[in-house]
Amino acid sequence: MAYFDAASGAPLHSVARQALLASLDEGWADPARLYREGRRARMLLDAAREAAAEAVGCRVDELVFTSSGTRAVHTGIAGALAGRRRVGRHLIVSAVEHSSVLHSAEVHESGGGSVTEVPVDRGGAVDPAAYGDALRADTALACLQSANHEVGTEQPVAAVAGRCREAGVPLLVDAAQSLGWGPVEGDWSLLTASAHKWGGPSGVGLLVVRKGVRFSAQGPVDERESGRAPGFENLPAIVAAAASLRAVRAEAAAEAARLRELTERIRARVPGLVPDVEVVGDPVRRLPGVVTFSCLYVDGEALLHELDREGFSVSSGSSCTSSTLTPSHVLRAMGVLSEGNVRVSLPVGAAEEDVERFLAVLPGAVAGVREKLGAPVSGAVVREADVLVVDSLGKRCPIPVIELAKVIGDVPVGGLVRVLSDDEAARLDIPAWCEMRGQEYVGEEPADKGTAYLIRRVS
Amino acid sequence: MAYFDAASGAPLHSVARQALLASLDEGWADPARLYREGRRARMLLDAAREAAAEAVGCRVDELVFTSSGTRAVHTGIAGALAGRRRVGRHLIVSAVEHSSVLHSAEVHESGGGSVTEVPVDRGGAVDPAAYGDALRADTALACLQSANHEVGTEQPVAAVAGRCREAGVPLLVDAAQSLGWGPVEGDWSLLTASAHKWGGPSGVGLLVVRKGVRFSAQGPVDERESGRAPGFENLPAIVAAAASLRAVRAEAAAEAARLRELTERIRARVPGLVPDVEVVGDPVRRLPGVVTFSCLYVDGEALLHELDREGFSVSSGSSCTSSTLTPSHVLRAMGVLSEGNVRVSLPVGAAEEDVERFLAVLPGAVAGVREKLGAPVSGAVVREADVLVVDSLGKRCPIPVIELAKVIGDVPVGGLVRVLSDDEAARLDIPAWCEMRGQEYVGEEPADKGTAYLIRRVS
Repeated sequence: MAYFDAASGAPLHSVARQALLASLDEGWADPARLYREGRRARMLLDAAREAAAEAVGCRVDELVFTSSGTRAVHTGIAGALAGRRRVGRHLIVSAVEHSSVLHSAEVHESGGGSVTEVPVDRGGAVDPAAYGDALRADTALACLQSANHEVGTEQPVAAVAGRCREAGVPLLVDAAQSLGWGPVEGDWSLLTASAHKWGGPSGVGLLVVRKGVRFSAQGPVDERESGRAPGFENLPAIVAAAASLRAVRAEAAAEAARLRELTERIRARVPGLVPDVEVVGDPVRRLPGVVTFSCLYVDGEALLHELDREGFSVSSGSSCTSSTLTPSHVLRAMGVLSEGNVRVSLPVGAAEEDVERFLAVLPGAVAGVREKLGAPVSGAVVREADVLVVDSLGKRCPIPVIELAKVIGDVPVGGLVRVLSDDEAARLDIPAWCEMRGQEYVGEEPADKGTAYLIRRVS
Repeated sequence: MAYFDAASGAPLHSVARQALLASLDEGWADPARLYREGRRARMLLDAAREAAAEAVGCRVDELVFTSSGTRAVHTGIAGALAGRRRVGRHLIVSAVEHSSVLHSAEVHESGGGSVTEVPVDRGGAVDPAAYGDALRADTALACLQSANHEVGTEQPVAAVAGRCREAGVPLLVDAAQSLGWGPVEGDWSLLTASAHKWGGPSGVGLLVVRKGVRFSAQGPVDERESGRAPGFENLPAIVAAAASLRAVRAEAAAEAARLRELTERIRARVPGLVPDVEVVGDPVRRLPGVVTFSCLYVDGEALLHELDREGFSVSSGSSCTSSTLTPSHVLRAMGVLSEGNVRVSLPVGAAEEDVERFLAVLPGAVAGVREKLGAPVSGAVVREADVLVVDSLGKRCPIPVIELAKVIGDVPVGGLVRVLSDDEAARLDIPAWCEMRGQEYVGEEPADKGTAYLIRRVS
């Protein structure tokens, strides 16, 4: 088995495992207590905080341990917004943030706040100038991830932090995907991270609030973790999280170079191995271990199952997975193809031969899925005046695009195809298909049922 | 070393340790993922939920895992209050709830809600009829602990749940202290608990919401744990928590009988071994492993240190500890002595010889502290008309009571002593001393500085 989904959660690092075992005996008591077991627990907690703060590059009293990265984001955003309530209620996020950030923004908006979502380019990155333009006199907080979790693109955090600093607005950086690789550059104000992304145990997140940043923790009072993370500290896990952060950092430079070479192989060779593939995300400014591509005419979930059978664990931002009916908001914001989407995120230590085997297996897996989908019950094809109408109502991604591809040759160059679809993914995938195929995407219009997408045959 | 503070957190149960180790390898992946590692994690999570639900006596889909007992309480109270927002904004709690409940009530009140605190008797229990009287047409939620964390008194949960059910008000039971001993009786609606109280790892709490209870999770949306506990599941720890709950339940009946006998020894023998001691909490309806007593003329923190030096880890609800300047709200609500307070809470497996050694060591430890305090710089004693005035301003618990005790013999029977004190603990401890000593507590009145407490010599 090859586990290629480290961006979801990395397997436990051996150092984390050792630290966890050692502190099960020493670190179970309440660190707030004065007796021996409590003092030992306190010492472990203090040492873990020191190690984590050193890795982040912050003061010890700026860092608290939360119960997850998601919780760190929720707490950080709510506390920073409340702390600057007097300045205003405007929040800036990028369009490709993690769901924990976007869901915090939704809550803020439904509570009467305003939110600006800064768009990204086709590579998935924000433009610092455009981000800066979103800053307003009433902006209470700005949020930007250090690197994207779905496509690996690194954001220009230092440049954005500079613009925020000039405007006097604190920047919260979600560093979940990058903290294991190195500290976040630039003059940020708040930072969040998640231990199980760097090989620590689950149940541990980090929230850093720089001194001088106004912060007002929300919810019931609790004396633990500076009042920012209620509940008994998850102590043995915190110790393991800090120890493994230090360990992955020690090997980060060498391992980053190695994984970057492996993902570069995938980036370079997949388009040659599999027809009709779009590799997405910035080719250069990216995380070492992440590479994402989308395959035309492929059902993402079916491809995941096919790869799982071959022994590869990957994830997908396609809408065609059992847990979601809409394509990933990241792929949508980038305007790239979402169907047949595959994210490969290599864990530390990923073996070269597994990557080679993945490349060997992928073409067959994609072809197999395409073959199964290749002869779907075709939509009724109705030739009207000079428009060919494809009725894909009720059919799910990637069927509408497959049916479009089947009939485009049936209209003369300059002729139109009108695809009727009620699948949300079509809105993204039909224009993306046009771009990949060099056909002209004319636009969409409401239809009696669903939406009509108009495509002009160019070649 | 003998660790006698299980009510704060129990040492990791051997079964929890084994389960944790086993699931570190099998349960680190994201249970929401479709590939092999994700499916294994999902199976472990499902099995843990089944085991925990069976121990609680609820449906599997009624139980979610949170990151701590405190978080379960915060989430449960906020969600139940929001779910019944239309009914009203009245919340009922007992006066002796855990701080997580009381802090949730504070937040509710500061947000415009109303709160009724139901008093307790001198044993620490609420009266079901009095609790029922607090129910109103606009009561959204009622909260009652299954047993008190500081004195071990069991609450009449089933009777109170019955009254709440009649009134159509959901009852949330904080079962943190009792769930390891058995399911909570009665027709409750919500239940919370904390794994590290029964020997599970830290980082795991339970929140149970019965079907049919209106519940609206607050905060940003998250798809995990039915939307009630955001963030990646703390999976190996959840598996360990469920396994150890099952394990402690299997031995609960025998172990409860054994610990009850040990705590009964302490209850029975401490008043004979140590002069001027008040054993507090219900003598019969109580947790098996908890016994609490207060020692006159003793500084709680000093006694904790003395016992720590002798190898005993206990906790104190006294105001005289480094973390607090006010006595425990539980002792205050009960109206019992708070000075020199000691809570002994025996963990599962506590050794009889350690309890015997504790009883052997305690008299000397108390005497040592008293000796050190026995010759404080005495307050200026000023005899006015027919009142003897003791100026204890600026002196901390237990000094005001010590000075009162020193001079009570100096006034004739029927004469008055007026103690000036600005220590909050005096408000509780001077009346408690009067009750223990058979003197008459006349009352308090504001003084130029602090408060004047009036005591009439009766005998």
